[in-house]
Amino acid sequence: VSGSVNASIVRVDTGIFTSQAHSLLERQGVFALSDENVAAVLPATVADRLDHILPPGETAKTWEQLGRLLEAMDAAGLDRDGHVLAIGGGVVTDIGGLAASLHRRGIAWTAMPTSLVGQVDAALGGKTAVNLGGGKNTVGTFHPPAAIVVDPTLLATLPDRHLRAGMAEVLKTALVSGTDLTEAVIDLPLSAMARAEPAAVDIITRCLATKDELVTADLTDQGPRRLLNLGHTFGHAFEALALPDLVHGEAVGLGLLCAARLGAEQPDAEPGLEGRLREALSRWGLPTTWEHDPQAVLDEMRRDKKRRAGTLRLVVPLAPGRVEIQSDPGRQRLAAALAAVGHSVSTS
Amino acid sequence: VSGSVNASIVRVDTGIFTSQAHSLLERQGVFALSDENVAAVLPATVADRLDHILPPGETAKTWEQLGRLLEAMDAAGLDRDGHVLAIGGGVVTDIGGLAASLHRRGIAWTAMPTSLVGQVDAALGGKTAVNLGGGKNTVGTFHPPAAIVVDPTLLATLPDRHLRAGMAEVLKTALVSGTDLTEAVIDLPLSAMARAEPAAVDIITRCLATKDELVTADLTDQGPRRLLNLGHTFGHAFEALALPDLVHGEAVGLGLLCAARLGAEQPDAEPGLEGRLREALSRWGLPTTWEHDPQAVLDEMRRDKKRRAGTLRLVVPLAPGRVEIQSDPGRQRLAAALAAVGHSVSTS
Repeated sequence: VSGSVNASIVRVDTGIFTSQAHSLLERQGVFALSDENVAAVLPATVADRLDHILPPGETAKTWEQLGRLLEAMDAAGLDRDGHVLAIGGGVVTDIGGLAASLHRRGIAWTAMPTSLVGQVDAALGGKTAVNLGGGKNTVGTFHPPAAIVVDPTLLATLPDRHLRAGMAEVLKTALVSGTDLTEAVIDLPLSAMARAEPAAVDIITRCLATKDELVTADLTDQGPRRLLNLGHTFGHAFEALALPDLVHGEAVGLGLLCAARLGAEQPDAEPGLEGRLREALSRWGLPTTWEHDPQAVLDEMRRDKKRRAGTLRLVVPLAPGRVEIQSDPGRQRLAAALAAVGHSVSTS
Repeated sequence: VSGSVNASIVRVDTGIFTSQAHSLLERQGVFALSDENVAAVLPATVADRLDHILPPGETAKTWEQLGRLLEAMDAAGLDRDGHVLAIGGGVVTDIGGLAASLHRRGIAWTAMPTSLVGQVDAALGGKTAVNLGGGKNTVGTFHPPAAIVVDPTLLATLPDRHLRAGMAEVLKTALVSGTDLTEAVIDLPLSAMARAEPAAVDIITRCLATKDELVTADLTDQGPRRLLNLGHTFGHAFEALALPDLVHGEAVGLGLLCAARLGAEQPDAEPGLEGRLREALSRWGLPTTWEHDPQAVLDEMRRDKKRRAGTLRLVVPLAPGRVEIQSDPGRQRLAAALAAVGHSVSTS
């Protein structure tokens, strides 16, 4: 329902996961959800208490899986005072939050994100979703969790590729935030994030604060919150065409480079921004080129635009902290921006 | 989301349906929904413009049908400014409102109820739902329609049995409202309702006003709105055991008699209320007895209680306008109340 306020209590600290999970699981009427990959790396005292385990990955974010989850919640006798605990990456919190918003017309939930994307982005803001009819996140609600518990030491359990991919979302949020955070992110080695070193924890906390500010101002994504789509319009098209060869964060990283090239056309853009982003992504081991057919990408962006808002709105970085929204940049300028990730294969 | 306000614009008038439907259908981005039975009796100029037609009856209120409807809305390219028009009985408005709340995380919708239950009860208040896992309305949202258009002349298209059944919901709402409305309802011949005579239109308007007041005070059904469950706790159990032999309104009518018998135990209850209700239901051609196994009904009520709130809360009429909530009345008193609909078959 539009107009609701994001009121999640966010706690970020190293080592808090197990005790926070236990204290919730000891309560009556808590339904704990995770996926196969995450369940395998959780402490046994938490893993043994899970009520429902999703198959891993984006392919689990379906209408059918949501139906099975809701049936399991019903069978467990969860009433209107019940509570969903979602432990996992963005897929688990997206589908868990949606199930919480639908069960008995809405119950409370807690997110304990285990992925870097989840910790800096997906769990906060109340956007819940599954994929239906070929599009991403076509069906969902705005239903902020009561609490978000972020334990960066969980990042050590992440497959390397997903930790790298998460850095693209971190960089995106930093670019929206400003120079200080962007510099700190660009300077961060991947190993510091994997080990949850103080500099990494500080960055996660500041990314969450940036997102919280934008979301609180605009829960239903009509205005300032849209800035967080930076890199995502190109990224969604890459992801749609390349799944499962590109994971979400990788596609967002490539999208950032295209968006930066679009921004470089503006007279007040900071020179060399695209190069600095490319260097950082590359240092973290993320792809900075992707072999593609530009026609196919542009067609996919047009399909996405038709599905969404009628106009294609691109978020474009001019400099850290200076990000603008461009409406319908036109096919030619978009094609030129795609050259930022090179390796094009022309079909015509 | 709790705390939202019911803000539906309600219009009640004879003969407004076609022009109101046309003016909405002429707009861009309106997705019109109905079911097979209703589509067959609508004016062709409206029926020809429907975008999706559900199978008829309560059996259409499923997770699978909701998924198909959402896929059709996605395929139609409905964006965030899109609008759902639901034309039909309670099933169509329940499922249509739920789809509207989920598509692109929530779009606006209009209800044009065609059944008597829909016109006095189901369309107003924002409760949307489908059935999942054996229970009724286990999954849903609170998502009030932007507008509700009630044209009582549509009642002439209703199968006789459903018009009769609707009178039980009218009587329920009147009992919650007070003496004046209750007397007016008890005195109303079924034919006046079928012909949308002024007395009938007046009753529909006053029922809607009663419901609107309770819903606005308590959208998420934590307090005063619960009074509208009068007759429904017994009724849901009857319906669950007898579907499709009892339609919803018939089950509610029987439930009213049981609730009245429970109320008659109170010292300040109005004598003879159960008899007056029975006489009215009977005059409208509704069943006032139902052959049942009391153990099975009590077991079903207990199952329902487990599914819902932990405590069984029964709404009990003492007199028109005087309705109280009794918590966990106990198996013996419930069994005694069931005798109000007689024809018991004991299994023990």
